[in-house]
Amino acid sequence: MSIGVGIIGAGVMGADHARIIAGQVAGAHLVAISDADEARAKAVAQETGAKRGVNDPLGVIHDPAVGAVLIASPDSTHADFAIACIKAGKPVLCEKPLAPTAAEGLRVVEAELSAGRRFVQLGFMRRFDPGYTEMKSLLNSGAYGEALAFHCIHRNATAPAHFDSAAAIVNSCVHEVDISRFVLSAELSAVRVIKAKRSKLAHFDDPMLVVFETDKGQLVDVELFLNAQYGYDVKGELICETGTISFGPTSNTEIRSAGVTATSLAPDWRPRFAAAYRIQNQAWIRSIVTGQPAGSSVWDGYVATTVTDAGVKALHTGETVAIAYEKRPGLYS
Amino acid sequence: MSIGVGIIGAGVMGADHARIIAGQVAGAHLVAISDADEARAKAVAQETGAKRGVNDPLGVIHDPAVGAVLIASPDSTHADFAIACIKAGKPVLCEKPLAPTAAEGLRVVEAELSAGRRFVQLGFMRRFDPGYTEMKSLLNSGAYGEALAFHCIHRNATAPAHFDSAAAIVNSCVHEVDISRFVLSAELSAVRVIKAKRSKLAHFDDPMLVVFETDKGQLVDVELFLNAQYGYDVKGELICETGTISFGPTSNTEIRSAGVTATSLAPDWRPRFAAAYRIQNQAWIRSIVTGQPAGSSVWDGYVATTVTDAGVKALHTGETVAIAYEKRPGLYS
Amino acid sequence: MSIGVGIIGAGVMGADHARIIAGQVAGAHLVAISDADEARAKAVAQETGAKRGVNDPLGVIHDPAVGAVLIASPDSTHADFAIACIKAGKPVLCEKPLAPTAAEGLRVVEAELSAGRRFVQLGFMRRFDPGYTEMKSLLNSGAYGEALAFHCIHRNATAPAHFDSAAAIVNSCVHEVDISRFVLSAELSAVRVIKAKRSKLAHFDDPMLVVFETDKGQLVDVELFLNAQYGYDVKGELICETGTISFGPTSNTEIRSAGVTATSLAPDWRPRFAAAYRIQNQAWIRSIVTGQPAGSSVWDGYVATTVTDAGVKALHTGETVAIAYEKRPGLYS
Amino acid sequence: MSIGVGIIGAGVMGADHARIIAGQVAGAHLVAISDADEARAKAVAQETGAKRGVNDPLGVIHDPAVGAVLIASPDSTHADFAIACIKAGKPVLCEKPLAPTAAEGLRVVEAELSAGRRFVQLGFMRRFDPGYTEMKSLLNSGAYGEALAFHCIHRNATAPAHFDSAAAIVNSCVHEVDISRFVLSAELSAVRVIKAKRSKLAHFDDPMLVVFETDKGQLVDVELFLNAQYGYDVKGELICETGTISFGPTSNTEIRSAGVTATSLAPDWRPRFAAAYRIQNQAWIRSIVTGQPAGSSVWDGYVATTVTDAGVKALHTGETVAIAYEKRPGLYS
Repeated sequence: MSIGVGIIGAGVMGADHARIIAGQVAGAHLVAISDADEARAKAVAQETGAKRGVNDPLGVIHDPAVGAVLIASPDSTHADFAIACIKAGKPVLCEKPLAPTAAEGLRVVEAELSAGRRFVQLGFMRRFDPGYTEMKSLLNSGAYGEALAFHCIHRNATAPAHFDSAAAIVNSCVHEVDISRFVLSAELSAVRVIKAKRSKLAHFDDPMLVVFETDKGQLVDVELFLNAQYGYDVKGELICETGTISFGPTSNTEIRSAGVTATSLAPDWRPRFAAAYRIQNQAWIRSIVTGQPAGSSVWDGYVATTVTDAGVKALHTGETVAIAYEKRPGLYS
Repeated sequence: MSIGVGIIGAGVMGADHARIIAGQVAGAHLVAISDADEARAKAVAQETGAKRGVNDPLGVIHDPAVGAVLIASPDSTHADFAIACIKAGKPVLCEKPLAPTAAEGLRVVEAELSAGRRFVQLGFMRRFDPGYTEMKSLLNSGAYGEALAFHCIHRNATAPAHFDSAAAIVNSCVHEVDISRFVLSAELSAVRVIKAKRSKLAHFDDPMLVVFETDKGQLVDVELFLNAQYGYDVKGELICETGTISFGPTSNTEIRSAGVTATSLAPDWRPRFAAAYRIQNQAWIRSIVTGQPAGSSVWDGYVATTVTDAGVKALHTGETVAIAYEKRPGLYS
Repeated sequence: MSIGVGIIGAGVMGADHARIIAGQVAGAHLVAISDADEARAKAVAQETGAKRGVNDPLGVIHDPAVGAVLIASPDSTHADFAIACIKAGKPVLCEKPLAPTAAEGLRVVEAELSAGRRFVQLGFMRRFDPGYTEMKSLLNSGAYGEALAFHCIHRNATAPAHFDSAAAIVNSCVHEVDISRFVLSAELSAVRVIKAKRSKLAHFDDPMLVVFETDKGQLVDVELFLNAQYGYDVKGELICETGTISFGPTSNTEIRSAGVTATSLAPDWRPRFAAAYRIQNQAWIRSIVTGQPAGSSVWDGYVATTVTDAGVKALHTGETVAIAYEKRPGLYS
Repeated sequence: MSIGVGIIGAGVMGADHARIIAGQVAGAHLVAISDADEARAKAVAQETGAKRGVNDPLGVIHDPAVGAVLIASPDSTHADFAIACIKAGKPVLCEKPLAPTAAEGLRVVEAELSAGRRFVQLGFMRRFDPGYTEMKSLLNSGAYGEALAFHCIHRNATAPAHFDSAAAIVNSCVHEVDISRFVLSAELSAVRVIKAKRSKLAHFDDPMLVVFETDKGQLVDVELFLNAQYGYDVKGELICETGTISFGPTSNTEIRSAGVTATSLAPDWRPRFAAAYRIQNQAWIRSIVTGQPAGSSVWDGYVATTVTDAGVKALHTGETVAIAYEKRPGLYS
């Protein structure tokens, strides 16, 4: 009854997932961890008590002791590994993104359609963050009327050196794409990008305001600021007809010293969303037992990539870009 | 040395101003209050201890006991009364707007240019709000680098029945127009209007997002939501290169009862900006003594109207509208 | 109609009061300022536009142009100056304390009783602080039931070198004595003092917990910590039968930088209670016009000193000390 | 490697623990649940996937498939079941209290001393609450100097009908007894109880202030208010030489509606301390694997009961009661 988990990728996220599965999730145990760097795989395996650290991802997928696979390898490999798992009939938790392009993402959708059922949960962990889930629940309670607009802020202390303005949309804004669809139960139908004054400390257009419309006419605006210096900061305010819902502070303590009252901000997304990752991974294991899918699907992954593709086009043209999707298969309705 | 003040207009704002001058401002005393409804003028005069309540605005302006005039009459009369005061050589505090159109506002500018000095302080009271002045001071301290973007939120519980979408920009958003110029020390150079889903409780496009660019490349976005139902709520967050500055809560007390911790919001702008009005009126009286103008000038009034004219055009066309100004006279530099 | 004010004492508090009367209070103007150091009196007079700076306090009191007197001279002189004003028939705003001992304070009470009316408002400015007045108003609304206990915190960054444990009670805790009587509409009937671990940065017993009982059976506990280092901090939480009421933050802005969200604390009591001082002084001038006394009376001053006398006894004995008062004259009921 | 857990007691807490072990804790699985009411045991077993629901606690303890026992049965049975587990050589997580009296608690201490090692972790879950652990960690960082005082507030919406004033100390205040020892790394050496005005909605002395001294001279004061009506509310403020540390808000969202900004409070201790329970139970399972004890020991349980015994004496006598302990065995140093 305990599910054997294999992890592909022993980098920062893979190692974190290994620690979560081994140390915080009921009903599962680690079997094997694979990485192109075998030594890294072995080190994580040893730390987390996994049986084996290897450099053979397909071996992990086909290992009979592995009942479910967690994919945390480089982005470009996600689709192929996910398809291999689907063919092997094994449930998957796949780190986002599903694929670098919408077209590639559709390949995974087709693999599930061929198999006739869903196997893959996509790792948009914010769907399990207590702030977002409470926000959605409060909206759905009807107590505040319909949602009209959603203000989002996504700030990192510093962006990786290889990021550019498009990467900010593809890698960072994609979280707001998925979570706004989740909170609003709506699809994004258009996008435009408005640049602010560029920070002298940034090497691309930063900050930017990305503005979406939903198919319900709602406005979603996202401030992206990936070189905000002061810390990691994610905010959301949902504007409803008779009230607004935003997040509370995320600091456990409040300190008064040196002339100020201060609460701490997370340095990066991992401590900020530690609860979300834990709850997500537990929900994945639980979903395998119950057979009820949880979290984002590969269709959600396809949609997210379609939206960010349009966002990049909007960035480059300065125009408002309408967003079109393939027809949603019944499997994902 | 106490300055005799005459007030034109005994409506809600005129009466408030009379109370402030009579009860909270040093160095001034009320002489006369005029209103088209003489009974209303007399009632306010009696309540506040002014000598006379009349229906003769020009008589107030030319009364030798009146050393300074506060204009709080209907918007369309502001320019003419202000010009009459300038011709009479009397300092003025004029409620916003300066005039319904930019062209009319320029008439007051020209009257001051003819007189060779400034007489009029325009009543954009937010320039005296402790939150905004502290925000500007923190920005100018340089501790957080340059300002890159400014998020503003302007919500009212309910809009007057005669308001439409254009009125929301002309009457409400105009405050953010003036205050963002003040905080950022920049001019607004372009504007676009993006509609959110319209609230079923609103009779025009509400909420809307009004997005400005400044001549420094900064982004200023203003959520206007004039039928937000829950109360009056003005928020601002200034995004700088290494930190952000926003307003603290404005409630004096925090109550824990019935399952929640709650702080109260103001029902409308008057309690929210009570300190701003008091400080503004005191600064006006002080400026008469010192001869150093304070607050917004008629040029600022002309600029504000020019920007909201462009905003209304952006609302109706859906386009980004560039904003052009007359050349700024040296008197206002 | 404008009341001429004379100020006795041009030290820190006297100069602050002169600035408030001259620059923020309606219906009054400064006539004269007296100080033992005549040069200091002249400097403050010049800064604030008072007609004269002198070293003749009785001359100020008897100046026919002086309609009301503000006493901000050394504590030991308050009672005598107040009595001189009462004999001269002039209204007084007297900085706390009324007198160093309860017995001396009674002399001023007797002077008012002889005169047959109240002349003196005692400068317990917290009664005009918007936080405390809103707290009292919320309690009196009945919405939260009766008050059962009141937690108070009174912290200073550093105590003056001449302070000792008794001075902490007499000079600092006295504010909580007056304000708890005001908020609770109750009298303090017993007091005990419980010492915490002494801070290595303090030169007397600091912090201490001073615990009062009221004649209604309520508990009032006051943490005194006068060498708290980090700033000036006054907190209050009123515990009622169905809810609690505490103060909101007092910072105008909130800054996110360097890993924290921070709001600033006042360095000392003057900025923290700037609004209270302004409102108090305005209420004093207003009370002279209306003839309705405002704020604390000399009886309140006598009571406060009686309580702190008992507090010092409790400090030295370690016992619970019952507090007895003279019979309250009808003039103060 | 997965540890089989048996649970004794299927009441509210036993059922919660079963859900946590089954659904949120890595490295463990439920084997059996016992309750005097066998139907209740079976229901919880079925819900949580435990193999068996029985009415045979000793059978659970001696079941070879049970590697560790969680005791959540009525308080008076804790000591005997714990001793049975120790004799059976099985690790225990025992809900607080260890025993109704200090003398009975010592029996469990002696059982461990006889066995020569620790088996029992006592369920003072606050030691795993992120707020308290961060507070302790910040104190131990030394950044704010030494701890001088600790203000605690413990409020429940309503107390059970069978509670009296002594029960408030024994059952509720006991949490602050354990956690203040934990945070301060100090022992409580004296206690007094000061009653506030009794709420008309309470059937015993409520609220009360319980004041402790530590062996380091620190002050710990605890407001107990078990009929506070408005919700469950636990607050703590640690006063150090150069700063104070308190808890941040615990609400995930902030709602603006109907004139207020509101954050929700927990209705009772279970949602408030949900994270603490989960982390505690995980730490227990982990400690079995590593052999390193976690959380409170039976010695801590003995100490807590000794302190609350003294607290009840202080309640009844009105005196300050010194607290004496047995000599601490080396096993618990």
